Amino acid sequence: EGMSVRGLGVDLRCRCIETESRRIGKLIQSVELFPPSAHCKDTEIIATLKETGQQICLDTTAPWVKKVIERILDNRKP
Amino acid sequence: EGMSVRGLGVDLRCRCIETESRRIGKLIQSVELFPPSAHCKDTEIIATLKETGQQICLDTTAPWVKKVIERILDNRKP
Repeated sequence: EGMSVRGLGVDLRCRCIETESRRIGKLIQSVELFPPSAHCKDTEIIATLKETGQQICLDTTAPWVKKVIERILDNRKP
Repeated sequence: EGMSVRGLGVDLRCRCIETESRRIGKLIQSVELFPPSAHCKDTEIIATLKETGQQICLDTTAPWVKKVIERILDNRKP
């Protein structure tokens, strides 16, 4: 779940095929935000997980995702 | 301004030496958020710029930075 096609042809199309629905906030090492662009009309959020470094697409509309980002902005762990 | 040491030894210390004070929202292609960790006590925000791909550290406490991130979460361009 939450597969990303990042690296296969950056910026030529949307990176996320599907998004992760589970609350994986505690596993997140970092989060990258891609605003809408000519190649993808919707914002995409890709989390990199601790230890594995796995990249997971998050649901930009999920309240828990927004909360995770707010926590990070607030200088707290996700 | 806004230099990053990313890539020099990821996660062993803070990535940002200084932060960009100018409002560079329009130039931003993507934004990466690094929550506080064992190696860096404060959240770090690194923007990748359009065209140049340059990586710039942003001030996590600057209101314009928070607004840029809110815009992206809101599915709008920064």
